[in-house]
Amino acid sequence: MSAVGAVTILQRCDALAAISSSAEGIERVYLSPEHARANALVGEWMVQAGMTTWTDAAGNQCGRYEGEVPGAPSLLLGSHLDTVPDAGRYDGILGVMLAIAVVSRLHEAGRRLPFAVEVLGFGDEEGTRFGTALLGSRAVAGTWDEGWWQLEDAAGTTLAEAFTAFGLDPSRVGDAARDPRRVLGYLEAHIEQGTYLEEADRALGVVSSIAGARRLQLTITGEAGHAGGVPFHRRHDALAGAAEAVLAIERRAKAVPGCVATVGQLHAFPGAVNVIPGRVELSLDLRAELDADRDRVWAQIQQDVQRTCRRRTLAFAATEIHRAPAVPAAPALRSVVVEGIATAGDHKPLVLLSNAGHDAMAIADLCDFAMLFIRCAGGVSHHPAEAVTRPDVRTALDALEASVLALAARETA
Amino acid sequence: MSAVGAVTILQRCDALAAISSSAEGIERVYLSPEHARANALVGEWMVQAGMTTWTDAAGNQCGRYEGEVPGAPSLLLGSHLDTVPDAGRYDGILGVMLAIAVVSRLHEAGRRLPFAVEVLGFGDEEGTRFGTALLGSRAVAGTWDEGWWQLEDAAGTTLAEAFTAFGLDPSRVGDAARDPRRVLGYLEAHIEQGTYLEEADRALGVVSSIAGARRLQLTITGEAGHAGGVPFHRRHDALAGAAEAVLAIERRAKAVPGCVATVGQLHAFPGAVNVIPGRVELSLDLRAELDADRDRVWAQIQQDVQRTCRRRTLAFAATEIHRAPAVPAAPALRSVVVEGIATAGDHKPLVLLSNAGHDAMAIADLCDFAMLFIRCAGGVSHHPAEAVTRPDVRTALDALEASVLALAARETA
Repeated sequence: MSAVGAVTILQRCDALAAISSSAEGIERVYLSPEHARANALVGEWMVQAGMTTWTDAAGNQCGRYEGEVPGAPSLLLGSHLDTVPDAGRYDGILGVMLAIAVVSRLHEAGRRLPFAVEVLGFGDEEGTRFGTALLGSRAVAGTWDEGWWQLEDAAGTTLAEAFTAFGLDPSRVGDAARDPRRVLGYLEAHIEQGTYLEEADRALGVVSSIAGARRLQLTITGEAGHAGGVPFHRRHDALAGAAEAVLAIERRAKAVPGCVATVGQLHAFPGAVNVIPGRVELSLDLRAELDADRDRVWAQIQQDVQRTCRRRTLAFAATEIHRAPAVPAAPALRSVVVEGIATAGDHKPLVLLSNAGHDAMAIADLCDFAMLFIRCAGGVSHHPAEAVTRPDVRTALDALEASVLALAARETA
Repeated sequence: MSAVGAVTILQRCDALAAISSSAEGIERVYLSPEHARANALVGEWMVQAGMTTWTDAAGNQCGRYEGEVPGAPSLLLGSHLDTVPDAGRYDGILGVMLAIAVVSRLHEAGRRLPFAVEVLGFGDEEGTRFGTALLGSRAVAGTWDEGWWQLEDAAGTTLAEAFTAFGLDPSRVGDAARDPRRVLGYLEAHIEQGTYLEEADRALGVVSSIAGARRLQLTITGEAGHAGGVPFHRRHDALAGAAEAVLAIERRAKAVPGCVATVGQLHAFPGAVNVIPGRVELSLDLRAELDADRDRVWAQIQQDVQRTCRRRTLAFAATEIHRAPAVPAAPALRSVVVEGIATAGDHKPLVLLSNAGHDAMAIADLCDFAMLFIRCAGGVSHHPAEAVTRPDVRTALDALEASVLALAARETA
């Protein structure tokens, strides 16, 4: 058997794409039957790469490749195995497959390092099922919030119930938390989900910092009524107010460089063709390079929406469901990634800000992290058209392996 | 046993309100288990009022009170028993209860008329389940469209499948159609769903005409993408485009007196908090006193939305799912209602245009119709706060009975 290369990595991404709750696209959410099947398949590949494997107390798929001395502290490699609805096949998944391939190369070469290497396939990064993101990596980082147990999915199943249904014991989630003294750091490879690499004609880049996101649930309440019977001057149409809110969000965020805002969900109630909507619930995802910019934009949005609601006699409420500060990569570990990319051929890699969130944000509470970005076609992500090239995957594998070896060299020195 | 009065009518509206698919509010849609239960209960009341009863080939609950000569042509009275989601308890239902009460009075008085009286409780007027309205009354009018069999509800059940599940035979729907030679006309009592009666301090009004509605399904298609990764200049956000469409619809309709437009449904896909919506589907319900106004407003809306979509590089498509011309009440039958309202105490009743659609629109294809409107609190309808007063219901009952007797007097003369 030879070590896993780019062709196998891409085949494995295809195999995982076939594990979906949707017949038409890719959807694999936290603690679902598809999650269990993906874990099992990834676990087989981990075993083939010479690792011992287990599913941790939060449902993350883990594999360990011992170092020169059994039981040594470990370098963590990984990303997530869950997806958004109608997803692409590389976001998260490619990072886990690259990490396994790096270990496979060490294993086939019979090479042991001064540290163990562990690969983590996180069960939840996207937050698709329970609205709150990074549940898998937060469990590993030891920053689990007991308030999350009551989070519900669209079917009304609580996170606690979903744990039990998956065969996990909610009272033992703390067992997933790693001891910071036993961990050297965390390296994550991920598609860019942007176009800076493509525009600069580069395969790889190193991440400087991950922008902090805030996620809010906005509720606009008016009065339902008959579409034919209620004249305009007596209407309090929650959807008309929400439409103004969507446009204010776009306008305010657009005005600040490095800031993006997205309304991904909007539900109008009661939702009948001949009834004026009495209530609208919409989500807001707000990100910026600087936390201060992001918070200023949110204050402006609130003012705009409040003004709209006063004019239309609507009520406005907002609940924050997620908030993460911008998190910088650790300089020492970042230099290891730069060295890895240089070994793979690019001696002055592009430095990129990540406006997308990543598991590394959560793991930053546990240990140092660094990230490697891989060019993706058109910057498209969270979409079936997500695509990478085989040469780029090969380069990424070389760079991630070289990064690990560079760290090993430093540890030995 | 004494004849049914206002107290019983209101109690019956409460009893029907309790037959709901929703634990929190009233929702009773076409061909549902709740529809069957409502039919059974209404059938009992019809029998108590001296009628023979049956469920017709389209699921409408019917009752017949014979005239002086058995088998005579009939006067139809009625309205609908289905509801919108989170409905009130009087829209449609009150009209059926008043009709039964009128027959109950004839029955208790041992009085036969020169024609039979039939009461119809239509199974679908709102179109909540299949998007297309007036299915029950269209079957009775003999204007059923064979293309409707493929209409689907939110769960993907076709209308044909729903018929079978309800115990009906789709191939026999034609049996529900009435022979126009056997029908004298149709009288419907209904809450106003507006505030003209309240503002004029009147209990009842007579309808001049029912405004024609058009219902359209609008689809705006852009490109889904990652909420963090895609900068604004690369976005084709279908929801931002849809927000502009919602506001253009409001602005254009507002500018034309007598015109109202409502977006009651809006669905964003894929619908995740961190994904830019790639597609939005929204409904448009458009009504005006004059069909020409309504059609001109729709042309303006299309131009506005097309302009928005060009600017944002989005695609726009519209499908008409319902279209009804404005329908005037028949002058002779309308004068019978005016006479009935006069007998109940108001000698110069208010003449009202109905911007809301009613079963009478469909029945107009079968026979002459006239309508009686009943004051409702604040004009609120399609909402749990829908309310009528007991004195108004008593007056409405007197007026509807007097209308029927006035017609009988004319037939005899």
